Amino acid sequence: MAVFLNDRFLDDQDAQLPIADLSIQRGYAIFDFFRTVHARPLFLEDHLERFYASAVAMGLAIKQHPDELQAILLELIEKSALQEAGVRLMLTGGNSPDGFSVADANLLLSCKPVQTADAATFSRGIQVLSYEYQRDLPHIKSINYQMAIWLQPFLKEKKADEVLYQQNGVVTEFPRANVFMVAKDNTLLTPAKAVLAGITRKKVLALAPKIMSVTERDISITELENAAEVFLTSTTRRLLPVVRVNGKTIGAGEPGPFTRRLYAQFLTLEKEMVG
Amino acid sequence: MAVFLNDRFLDDQDAQLPIADLSIQRGYAIFDFFRTVHARPLFLEDHLERFYASAVAMGLAIKQHPDELQAILLELIEKSALQEAGVRLMLTGGNSPDGFSVADANLLLSCKPVQTADAATFSRGIQVLSYEYQRDLPHIKSINYQMAIWLQPFLKEKKADEVLYQQNGVVTEFPRANVFMVAKDNTLLTPAKAVLAGITRKKVLALAPKIMSVTERDISITELENAAEVFLTSTTRRLLPVVRVNGKTIGAGEPGPFTRRLYAQFLTLEKEMVG
Repeated sequence: MAVFLNDRFLDDQDAQLPIADLSIQRGYAIFDFFRTVHARPLFLEDHLERFYASAVAMGLAIKQHPDELQAILLELIEKSALQEAGVRLMLTGGNSPDGFSVADANLLLSCKPVQTADAATFSRGIQVLSYEYQRDLPHIKSINYQMAIWLQPFLKEKKADEVLYQQNGVVTEFPRANVFMVAKDNTLLTPAKAVLAGITRKKVLALAPKIMSVTERDISITELENAAEVFLTSTTRRLLPVVRVNGKTIGAGEPGPFTRRLYAQFLTLEKEMVG
Repeated sequence: MAVFLNDRFLDDQDAQLPIADLSIQRGYAIFDFFRTVHARPLFLEDHLERFYASAVAMGLAIKQHPDELQAILLELIEKSALQEAGVRLMLTGGNSPDGFSVADANLLLSCKPVQTADAATFSRGIQVLSYEYQRDLPHIKSINYQMAIWLQPFLKEKKADEVLYQQNGVVTEFPRANVFMVAKDNTLLTPAKAVLAGITRKKVLALAPKIMSVTERDISITELENAAEVFLTSTTRRLLPVVRVNGKTIGAGEPGPFTRRLYAQFLTLEKEMVG
């Protein structure tokens, strides 16, 4: 692991935050996460743009100019000596004297080995359960995953791979991924409201119009359960087919043709960017 | 400050958590907080009971038996050499290898100087604004205060002291305090659903029946705005009068007679416990 805190690189054993930090005291922090391929960052500009936007929305200031932060990140990746890495950018509410007020933000960057979803997982697809919940401030990539982690024993018991949040019958997103469906008329649909603007989501929305019509709109859970195809998008999992929703089989219960084509397009784009 | 982590007391400069800790990675942790008076813990049994209950509800295990934890806390208070202290018990999701799965919980205890609300603040009372929001898993004392901290600039702009959460017109609680009202028929009311079981709230509910009738039930924001008296309860602020709600003056705009009597009763109880 390679770690950078505020203004310097740290040894692994020093990769700590003071207990006065507002992430520890009050769960107040934002982050972002990108992958490297052949030691080159994937979609770095998009991730930096979102990281700075999250900071503004949370009332936290990043001292570094984006160019400076980018240079630090490239040095961090080099120091890690990793080819395929996950890089986490984190900005916390700082070392708060009273444990509640926002102080000077702590910037924490770390670079670790990462595993992406493999071909077997793609072929098998995943099973999801929907759950009534709406994330707070969904447009901000904050560290608030309390509900997602709290739900893990429930998912395990139900033998589901992922939880999909819904609110009043309308699906929004997974805790760490966006949701897409292919309707029976071959339109690609994804929710636009109350979701995080995923970077893989953005890329799929840019790629898909070449092969199908695309609409961003509310999707009901019933609509999703009756979709021709469903998949999720995320940085570590790219596109991953969903083959069951609330126990109902989607399409033929295997990755659908549009999901396969979009996945192939995404892999091509990834290769173009960092290949 | 005196600090204890898992199995040992730490020096101030070592009071840190590894960045893999799930509080830093995902805001996943619980805590509790009590005061000492003359170096003696106030309502310690109640706080310990709630701390263990929060741990169970969050799926986290506390290694120590309550008696053992109590002994460590007493040693911590002694080491701090503080008479009036705030003691924070925290239990996190642990050092998570993948930054998402719950690991062996980290237990973090700290003892710092604390200030309670003074007589001038009591006499002046506070102004509150209501805001549409419901905390996740409200019965658990978790570190999720994202919304409360995010709202601070808004409160400052509106010159309000505190935000009061409401959901569909029904008030629940403050981010760090419970709410009470005295109705025009002299009944003491406080919400019972979707709130944290505050320890000061519990004490007030035990004391009040000597002087008035008490009902735990839903309270609408309109009812609250038209109350004879409103006050909050919290560990650091004991009972604190609310003199304005959403710009509407409560009663005579000063601490009401029942609030004063309950406050006096509470101070007596506090003295009995630790005097």
